[in-house]
Amino acid sequence: MAANSVRVAVLPGDGIGTEVTEATLAVLERLTRRYGIGLSTETLPAGAFHYQATGEAFPEASFQAAKSADAILLGAMGWPGIRQADGTEIAPQLDLRFRLGLYAGVRPVRAIPGVPVALADPRAGGIDFVLVRESTEGLFHSRGTGLVTEDMAEETLRITRATTEKLSRFSFRLAERRAARLGRKGRVTLVDKANVFRAFAFMRAVFDGVAKEFPGIESGHHYVDAMALDLVRHPWAFDVLPTENMFGDILSDLAAGLVGGMGFSPSADIGDEHAVFQPAHGTAPDIAGKGIANPTATLLSAAMMLDWLASRGAGGAFAEAAAELEGAVDGAFATGLRTADIGGRDDTAAVVRAVSDRL
Amino acid sequence: MAANSVRVAVLPGDGIGTEVTEATLAVLERLTRRYGIGLSTETLPAGAFHYQATGEAFPEASFQAAKSADAILLGAMGWPGIRQADGTEIAPQLDLRFRLGLYAGVRPVRAIPGVPVALADPRAGGIDFVLVRESTEGLFHSRGTGLVTEDMAEETLRITRATTEKLSRFSFRLAERRAARLGRKGRVTLVDKANVFRAFAFMRAVFDGVAKEFPGIESGHHYVDAMALDLVRHPWAFDVLPTENMFGDILSDLAAGLVGGMGFSPSADIGDEHAVFQPAHGTAPDIAGKGIANPTATLLSAAMMLDWLASRGAGGAFAEAAAELEGAVDGAFATGLRTADIGGRDDTAAVVRAVSDRL
Ligand SMILES: CC(C)[C@H](C(=O)O)[C@@H](O)C(=O)O
Ligand SMILES: CC(C)[C@H](C(=O)O)[C@@H](O)C(=O)O
Repeated sequence: MAANSVRVAVLPGDGIGTEVTEATLAVLERLTRRYGIGLSTETLPAGAFHYQATGEAFPEASFQAAKSADAILLGAMGWPGIRQADGTEIAPQLDLRFRLGLYAGVRPVRAIPGVPVALADPRAGGIDFVLVRESTEGLFHSRGTGLVTEDMAEETLRITRATTEKLSRFSFRLAERRAARLGRKGRVTLVDKANVFRAFAFMRAVFDGVAKEFPGIESGHHYVDAMALDLVRHPWAFDVLPTENMFGDILSDLAAGLVGGMGFSPSADIGDEHAVFQPAHGTAPDIAGKGIANPTATLLSAAMMLDWLASRGAGGAFAEAAAELEGAVDGAFATGLRTADIGGRDDTAAVVRAVSDRL
Repeated sequence: MAANSVRVAVLPGDGIGTEVTEATLAVLERLTRRYGIGLSTETLPAGAFHYQATGEAFPEASFQAAKSADAILLGAMGWPGIRQADGTEIAPQLDLRFRLGLYAGVRPVRAIPGVPVALADPRAGGIDFVLVRESTEGLFHSRGTGLVTEDMAEETLRITRATTEKLSRFSFRLAERRAARLGRKGRVTLVDKANVFRAFAFMRAVFDGVAKEFPGIESGHHYVDAMALDLVRHPWAFDVLPTENMFGDILSDLAAGLVGGMGFSPSADIGDEHAVFQPAHGTAPDIAGKGIANPTATLLSAAMMLDWLASRGAGGAFAEAAAELEGAVDGAFATGLRTADIGGRDDTAAVVRAVSDRL
């Protein structure tokens, strides 16, 4: 990609997806002007309401435009009552993960100063780890293709050597970058269930092989059940946590609950060539249209996007803009911004104002 | 079973399994004398050390003796470094679940007065719900039989109509009993991932069919990721939560973390004819042999056992003894008992004394 001509495909989706996306584009607009970086956006249709209107949840034209962009920013998709014929959800975000090979579902979990944490222990203010949810196989391998008879149903969990190697390498590299930034030794802990399943013993063996390539980073394993317990008991003890798709889905929501909920949980689904950035939350039908959705997760996802674009050659100004955006979000909450999801009165526009004012 | 001649098979297992079992048998001894109920125990060998010594983790004689008993009390099994040839853990407790058809893995989650809860919200003191982990199929269907090639590995998640119906009925009946005891309307919430997987849409449909048999109990569904979040955000809002085996494994550990950890988490694996009662914790190699293991989870599991025996016709004295035992545990912690796992100095023997003194 040529510096200063980055193209971002925007998929606002349904419900509050459109609201948090709009808020984020407003902030990005200001940020790019401030840093003199060229970033153009193209908004594309997809989602449950599009499915209702046209019979297509994710038009091929939208997919191709997203694929040819430098990065993809997504709001949220899906709506109660609008389902595919087999009863499963409208989820173009899953199509993107599978079709673009976005194996690394990066879910940073960080206590933001000023945002109430769930745990009573004061160390919870220091929560700062990253779940890396494998996002193209695992149990989701059989999504929508499970066998169903009158008497039983089956799904297949699949773990490949190739994807596990990529996931592991991605996780160790992430730990290296975090170690440099945080000034401490990095540690990668694979979350599996190798004590019961051969597939997870296989995953662990592949992971251990990759670990040898990174002698500077500690590596270890944790059973998924024990990890669910330890994320409640001492989440501040973890660094980078790669895991299987379904496990990652569960643990990342648990983790979001520790640091203010889904409204504060950004995510990135990253592959070798493409990446999608989106808040971890859904379309929130109960508050959609009211203008009170918390856009913080999307703002932080946009910061991850700028950072990733920098690593892809978009230029150092993108990395600076990413840090500035994250700093502005932190600063706004540290000085009293309070959204409805954490019991405050600040609406979507108020967050945009508070963050923009700090840019 | 004839009243007053109940036979309990005891499988202490490995590590602290033997310590918490011994403590519990001492308390049971006193309790049965106090209530004049006849309960004989037979201790049976099984576990990782037995495997190391004999090459057999679970001798057939132990299994048959356990099977012919009226109830089974289990400590904990497994040990780091002692593994089966395929690398999976020594876990006779899994054999029992499968071979005896113990489909309902009952995991009560209750804040015990005096035991610190993890969440900052004061409502956490009111946590009182029950996870019902299906324990004979789901992902564990393929335990130890997964396909492994050079390049990939697969496991099969299986959900049957027959077991889902039993699990659902069990959950609604449990909700009825809880509603009567707690004086409120009961509610059963199936935890699934029906938005992505046909097998879970199938499970949900079967569950909904059973729900119609129980018009007096509310029924609903929750996605497993959202449930992981809500167990951190407002666990006091739930009542009875049936779910798939792997999901239940993860969520029950998460839930244990909310109310003091595994040392306070009892469990029962119940089938149509048999039941195993055991603490949710493992063998704790780090503290084994020191006499400081917390036997509370085993004591509470024993209370569940007495209650279940009463429901099977052992006599009302068993139900009274169960309530008395649970009350004694609560009373001991409410008045200052503090085990090492919650930062106190009371060892295993101190718990036995404190609880026995209240019987
Ligand atoms: C909406 C749903 C299909 C999706 C998933 O399960 O992956 C969501 O929970 C997520 O985490 O992105
Ligand atoms: C020890 C292990 C095999 C077992 C399981 O996964 O079922 C344990 O975690 C449990 O919850 O009883």
